[in-house]
Amino acid sequence: MRDTFHDELDQIGTALIEMTQLVGTAMSKATTALLTADLAAAEEVVSGDDKVNVLYAETEERAFDLLARQQPVAGDLRVIVTGLRMVASLERMGDLAAHIAKIARLRYPQVAVPEEVRDVIRQMSVIAQNVVTKAGAVLAGHDIELAAELERDDDAMDELHKRLFTVLLGDWTHGIEAAIDVTLLGRFYERYADHAVSVSRRVVQLVTGELPPS
Amino acid sequence: MRDTFHDELDQIGTALIEMTQLVGTAMSKATTALLTADLAAAEEVVSGDDKVNVLYAETEERAFDLLARQQPVAGDLRVIVTGLRMVASLERMGDLAAHIAKIARLRYPQVAVPEEVRDVIRQMSVIAQNVVTKAGAVLAGHDIELAAELERDDDAMDELHKRLFTVLLGDWTHGIEAAIDVTLLGRFYERYADHAVSVSRRVVQLVTGELPPS
Repeated sequence: MRDTFHDELDQIGTALIEMTQLVGTAMSKATTALLTADLAAAEEVVSGDDKVNVLYAETEERAFDLLARQQPVAGDLRVIVTGLRMVASLERMGDLAAHIAKIARLRYPQVAVPEEVRDVIRQMSVIAQNVVTKAGAVLAGHDIELAAELERDDDAMDELHKRLFTVLLGDWTHGIEAAIDVTLLGRFYERYADHAVSVSRRVVQLVTGELPPS
Repeated sequence: MRDTFHDELDQIGTALIEMTQLVGTAMSKATTALLTADLAAAEEVVSGDDKVNVLYAETEERAFDLLARQQPVAGDLRVIVTGLRMVASLERMGDLAAHIAKIARLRYPQVAVPEEVRDVIRQMSVIAQNVVTKAGAVLAGHDIELAAELERDDDAMDELHKRLFTVLLGDWTHGIEAAIDVTLLGRFYERYADHAVSVSRRVVQLVTGELPPS
């Protein structure tokens, strides 16, 4: 039978995995909102971010409480403190999905992104989905090989981010406002993936004792 | 006489304050690089970020070590874990200053920002300096009133950020590339201030037990 301490530690892990699901869904819905000017979807993402924030606050409190009550030793201690870092990354990923939804909402009933960048944005969104799903799986299974895949996904995200700039700096006929939106959107998708990779890297660090080289 | 534990805790506090100074200098130099196309200054900021990263890694290690060896109780525990959050914010602020320097470097020998936004950027930089200096003072003195000032500075930063968009969406004749640069720069200054405010808010939380309302 497991002890109470490890049960509570598991609850933190479960909350982290749940957060990957929430921010993954938020990102998927934010992209739908963005590419189809779906106002209802945008509103859902913006208001749904509260749920992520509540889970963040609860998990943080639970971790502090566990640290204070149980005085865990080295290994467990590191797990809890690392969990506190991860939960902050996941909260930020929720914010970034909400930022995307807010741009969709701001431009409604127009679609914020011109036709010629939609495909790149769609691909960035697919990678964002992949990385957050994999980060959840890494969290659940401590799968180091999957963590390496995530690093490659992140490289692919960087390539798409560059392609977005190539389109912007090509024959852009959509004006400054759309260029600003696309610039910020590119940044939001890229940062989202960075945070997912950071979550995965911290799991690797817990398992191997070393942060993988970036 | 103070005990070893509190001496070591003080060392973490000192490192955090030193980091505010480093990232403050980096931001000041990055802005000079940006507004005067000063390549040497830009290079210094980019390479100097290593020092911030080293201090980050050392402080993180020290905090983990202290947690593991000393098994601190509630109050001290919260100080250390909060220190770990702050050090992450400060590291990120160093990155943001380096991002600004990289844009300066990329556009050298041109000045990346057109004349008409330089004043807004200069003002954003002044606020960035103010908030990081005040965050250092809040860290050093646990000065709650100064922390309230920081929140107002952050509002002023948000106003400047909006003004930047107003200029971009006005009679912009500098093309898409400069618009992208200015959009990203605005975001970097704003995020830098957000992180400084977050550091200060976490000090308030330690002192009062409550995170101030955002």
